[in-house]
Amino acid sequence: MSDFTDNLKPRHDGAATLTAERNGSLISSDELSKHLLSRDGFLPRQARIVEILEKEKLFSKNQQLNLSRPERYHLGLARAKALRRMVEKHGWDHEDYRMAEYLTDEMSPFHLQMTMFATTVREQASEEQKAYWMPKILDWSIIGCYAQSELGHGSNVKGLETQAKWDPKAKEFVLHSPYLTASKWWNGAMGRTATHAIVVAQLLLPGKDNPAQFTSYGPQPFIVQIRDLKTHQPLPGIIVGDIGPKYGYASMDNGYMLFDQFRIPHSAMLSRYAEVNNETGAFTKRGHHAVLYGSLTFVRAQIIMHARLILARAVTVAVRYTAIRRQFRNRDSKDESEPEMAILDYPTVQIRILPLLATTFALHYTGEMMYDLYSRTRQSIEKGDFSAIAELHSASSGLKSLCTTLAADGIETCRRAMGGHGFGGGSGLVGINADYLSKPTVEGDNWMITQQVAAYLIKKMTAAVENPDAPPADALDELFQMYLRDSGRRLPQNVVHGSEVDDEAIVDVFQWRAADLSYRAYQSRIIEKKSWNSLLIQLHKLSRAYSEQILITNFHAALTNPASTSTLSPTTHSVLRSCFRLYALFTMDNEARSFSSTNAVCTDSLDVLPDTILALMAEIRPHAVKLVDSWAIPDYLLDSALGRYDGKVYEKLFDMAHRQNPLNQVTFNRDWRSEEIVLGSGDGGKPILSKL
Amino acid sequence: MSDFTDNLKPRHDGAATLTAERNGSLISSDELSKHLLSRDGFLPRQARIVEILEKEKLFSKNQQLNLSRPERYHLGLARAKALRRMVEKHGWDHEDYRMAEYLTDEMSPFHLQMTMFATTVREQASEEQKAYWMPKILDWSIIGCYAQSELGHGSNVKGLETQAKWDPKAKEFVLHSPYLTASKWWNGAMGRTATHAIVVAQLLLPGKDNPAQFTSYGPQPFIVQIRDLKTHQPLPGIIVGDIGPKYGYASMDNGYMLFDQFRIPHSAMLSRYAEVNNETGAFTKRGHHAVLYGSLTFVRAQIIMHARLILARAVTVAVRYTAIRRQFRNRDSKDESEPEMAILDYPTVQIRILPLLATTFALHYTGEMMYDLYSRTRQSIEKGDFSAIAELHSASSGLKSLCTTLAADGIETCRRAMGGHGFGGGSGLVGINADYLSKPTVEGDNWMITQQVAAYLIKKMTAAVENPDAPPADALDELFQMYLRDSGRRLPQNVVHGSEVDDEAIVDVFQWRAADLSYRAYQSRIIEKKSWNSLLIQLHKLSRAYSEQILITNFHAALTNPASTSTLSPTTHSVLRSCFRLYALFTMDNEARSFSSTNAVCTDSLDVLPDTILALMAEIRPHAVKLVDSWAIPDYLLDSALGRYDGKVYEKLFDMAHRQNPLNQVTFNRDWRSEEIVLGSGDGGKPILSKL
Repeated sequence: MSDFTDNLKPRHDGAATLTAERNGSLISSDELSKHLLSRDGFLPRQARIVEILEKEKLFSKNQQLNLSRPERYHLGLARAKALRRMVEKHGWDHEDYRMAEYLTDEMSPFHLQMTMFATTVREQASEEQKAYWMPKILDWSIIGCYAQSELGHGSNVKGLETQAKWDPKAKEFVLHSPYLTASKWWNGAMGRTATHAIVVAQLLLPGKDNPAQFTSYGPQPFIVQIRDLKTHQPLPGIIVGDIGPKYGYASMDNGYMLFDQFRIPHSAMLSRYAEVNNETGAFTKRGHHAVLYGSLTFVRAQIIMHARLILARAVTVAVRYTAIRRQFRNRDSKDESEPEMAILDYPTVQIRILPLLATTFALHYTGEMMYDLYSRTRQSIEKGDFSAIAELHSASSGLKSLCTTLAADGIETCRRAMGGHGFGGGSGLVGINADYLSKPTVEGDNWMITQQVAAYLIKKMTAAVENPDAPPADALDELFQMYLRDSGRRLPQNVVHGSEVDDEAIVDVFQWRAADLSYRAYQSRIIEKKSWNSLLIQLHKLSRAYSEQILITNFHAALTNPASTSTLSPTTHSVLRSCFRLYALFTMDNEARSFSSTNAVCTDSLDVLPDTILALMAEIRPHAVKLVDSWAIPDYLLDSALGRYDGKVYEKLFDMAHRQNPLNQVTFNRDWRSEEIVLGSGDGGKPILSKL
Repeated sequence: MSDFTDNLKPRHDGAATLTAERNGSLISSDELSKHLLSRDGFLPRQARIVEILEKEKLFSKNQQLNLSRPERYHLGLARAKALRRMVEKHGWDHEDYRMAEYLTDEMSPFHLQMTMFATTVREQASEEQKAYWMPKILDWSIIGCYAQSELGHGSNVKGLETQAKWDPKAKEFVLHSPYLTASKWWNGAMGRTATHAIVVAQLLLPGKDNPAQFTSYGPQPFIVQIRDLKTHQPLPGIIVGDIGPKYGYASMDNGYMLFDQFRIPHSAMLSRYAEVNNETGAFTKRGHHAVLYGSLTFVRAQIIMHARLILARAVTVAVRYTAIRRQFRNRDSKDESEPEMAILDYPTVQIRILPLLATTFALHYTGEMMYDLYSRTRQSIEKGDFSAIAELHSASSGLKSLCTTLAADGIETCRRAMGGHGFGGGSGLVGINADYLSKPTVEGDNWMITQQVAAYLIKKMTAAVENPDAPPADALDELFQMYLRDSGRRLPQNVVHGSEVDDEAIVDVFQWRAADLSYRAYQSRIIEKKSWNSLLIQLHKLSRAYSEQILITNFHAALTNPASTSTLSPTTHSVLRSCFRLYALFTMDNEARSFSSTNAVCTDSLDVLPDTILALMAEIRPHAVKLVDSWAIPDYLLDSALGRYDGKVYEKLFDMAHRQNPLNQVTFNRDWRSEEIVLGSGDGGKPILSKL
């Protein structure tokens, strides 16, 4: 298929541009990569696994955007099974397997097996149940899913409608769906893949006096076989299937499931924490879900660490492409022969991308802090002592909300900053955007869960007001006590002196604002006794301000901690400090009135924020390509013509269009009088009609 | 396929809920519909066309999300041709045809024919050229596209790389692509459909003295046959094809095209405004593109009117679904038997949806004003007199940017407000989101084009400063003169007095802020002589503030104009006024510091905005369903289980999953040891591998 385009080159050489960008910065991206990505041997593991995946045809992403949704599930299942075989073949450990899933970059139908399914059995099953189920799970002879959400209920778990009635005569539970809205819904891997499910259902026990009257003991987990192990057909009394196409998650079979008086044995109820006595039918609860509390913090830390890599991926594409893309000469230039400007040199492009680049680091240091604290206090957590991470656990709701919102919005901001090609498949952002848009909703809706952190802050502020001199149990107590001492004589602070940014003042004003908003919430709820619902918007803003303060505090602490930064060269350290300032001042500028109305920052400082931000962006700009290189996203994962490491943007875009697009293999009949679609086929338009 | 789910009902009846919502408001949605949608007989036309389309299998949208991208083009072409046949069969006029395209709701491969292709020929061809080409276009014996954008250039049209060299001996132009980045790119209908293209190329004329030296006369339009009319193969010397999958526009064949010394006759250059003399090779330009100036204003008005319907669609889905969806009991309630709350009753849901509902009306009245002004002054425009719409033409860049941003962001805000089901295909927002995300970029990038309005405002402010007493030519002159007179003694205004909102003060402060920001831009650019690029962010904010002021001014003018509102009942009028206030105060609260730093609004008023907004949302809430009903979006267009007019949300979601999902027809082999994917097929995993 040789033709005259074979010898054409782009007018400007993207590869040379990126080389010049890299030569223009003294940052060592290797050094910074190691600083950012050394936990659990991330970098060598990534290098080892990506080399294997890249060679497998099944893992090629070239045609993914041309597949239909049903085909994407076929592919997802094929890849899930192949990955399992690769575990055996290459002797991968669990982290290797997770890395392979991460690099494959789609929600796998096997994803729930070792996460929600295995974790629930491990944490909530009795020892006897574990002994029975874990081996089957670990050799993958059964495939599991986790069936909690229903058509009518997601966030409000207590409102689930699926019933599990105890039949004392048969010593069985009867699973039943009394309403259409009781249908299990959204549960991953359930639609077409799973053989078993953890079904969360309202436990209903018959009354002692009146056995026809049932009392609910709340939602409880049951482990249930849902499909025949040979025929893979649903068992009688079960209706189960895939819910159909969604925004993203094309490769995953999110499912629905209903029960018609479906009987399961007594042993199906996971009974580490709650049990129905087989003989008496009495309900016993034991212990707290203490471990869950700790592992939720760990999961939230993972969400933040994942968010930073997602955002880093979008920013990598945007920085590399906008460094290469040229459009318009400098409007003030008189020189007609001057080349067009790289669009990353326009402040209107910088203001969209560089603060997000800075945000990747902000997320990083808080994620690291959460991991560290969790590992350091793991033993006390196992024993049910959460004093060390109590605040963090509470804050984790606010952080989940803030960080996934920043990442989800950031992908789209990067995409739009890339103009026309940002809308094309070559951006590499189509799939990541569609999939990641789930995150602001799943694992706690980003608006709803901010109530949890606000409630905690009100409780802590109430305690601080009532006992202003009590010995502080944690940093939050200290902050609130300081706030209560100083609020009468607080002067709004300067964060910029002349052209000097004051890092300590930045930390102070973010903390002060969070404390002030906490006090206002306390005032409204506890003193003025306003209704909870009337405060929801205020509480959401409080949670966000508090979470921003955490990101700021941890970012600053990391930059001033010699242990954390000893491996960094002075240049790198200095650029990271500019990123800290940019993230902080950009956030402050966007919410400027919140910083003035809380007496945190003085008007003079707020007035100079736009110019200070411009200056910080100019400082960071020469290092932008090296900074994104440091996130070490492999081309295989980026899957982006615009974001390629080598800068061959236009060559790749053209290759995708001209040599890889299957639509170009077909010649069409454009005559409106004819029903034929493929020219000369005589199809009469029937093939496409038959798919509707 | 009868089963036990056939008789299940949702726990709460969505249909009854919507009926109760409708009975709870005194607004007449028919009356408001007529007020909003009477232009050009929109409502009866919509009713007539939707009835026809709904009956055609080819126009069924049920399976659309299950089709691959190549299939979507097959479908798009089949529908495009069918629509043409329906024009003949039903005797549709052009507005009927446009309505059918709008209701079909996908970018048609025939869409460019009567828009860019026909319009360019009509406006830029000579009379002789028009006489030759227009009949072929109007009987669709040729299919056209508009090839301007290239791989390397979109916004900067002057930087286009495709060359049209005049060969004086052969009396031909030679089209040539000297670089890969000269490839035409993105051009709709070019990839697989079009037979002809308007090719915009740099006109190069040989020097009089040195014929080997060419001088560029800038980009000029040429009409070019690109494919054989019988075989539909590209003509020799042309490489053309489809660029591949994108975020949206799956049904459209956006194309690429390169030329290898491709010769076209002298008559190919559209020569109403510019011509190369066939004999002498001399270049002549004549007249201004005056008409283009007018029709651009008209196109921009259409973009705003379209944006309001897009946003109305997303808001319709969100309001109806969140009125039905229930989750959690009131947290302050002690009554365990109290039903769960409709999520639209949570302020955190209201604050995302209701301001967008108000925004639909804000967009409407400005779009109406633009249409009106354009029609009223059409004759003077044709004569090249633009005095009446000069300001509007300039403002239209800012309005395009603001309105398409509001609509694009609004779709995603509505989606997230709907929680889990918002991520599902039943939301009906998957396609509209993917397609509409193009709008912030096409027809002038939303960040780039704001420079045009800022430049205009600086020019006007400069004139006002230089001649403060000159008779004002338009409303903008009046505003700027008033600003210059009063700025020394301006007191920041109250917009809320107690619980009373002051509508006139709202208009005043939006106008004042726009004037103040214009003055600052003038100060920076003209007095301080700052570089244009260093001001870009400031200018973008200016354009936005100015455009917001236009929306506010027109919305207020419409509500206080008896002619405009005489058909509205007092209740409806009053609710629309609450919408005006909500849009205004929500915008003000989001950009509060901009209103305080420009001395527009006093701090006391800014402090009470959150509570005032809560109160306004409570006023609008009971009318929300009726208000979205008034936008009269047919279920066929909504294509949304969540947004159905009848409220049968859960019944439809279940039907889509259980009865219409083709993936549920297949049984899969979940055994990881086997390469087989479809159980019992012995496929060995080959079918899906072959598609990669």
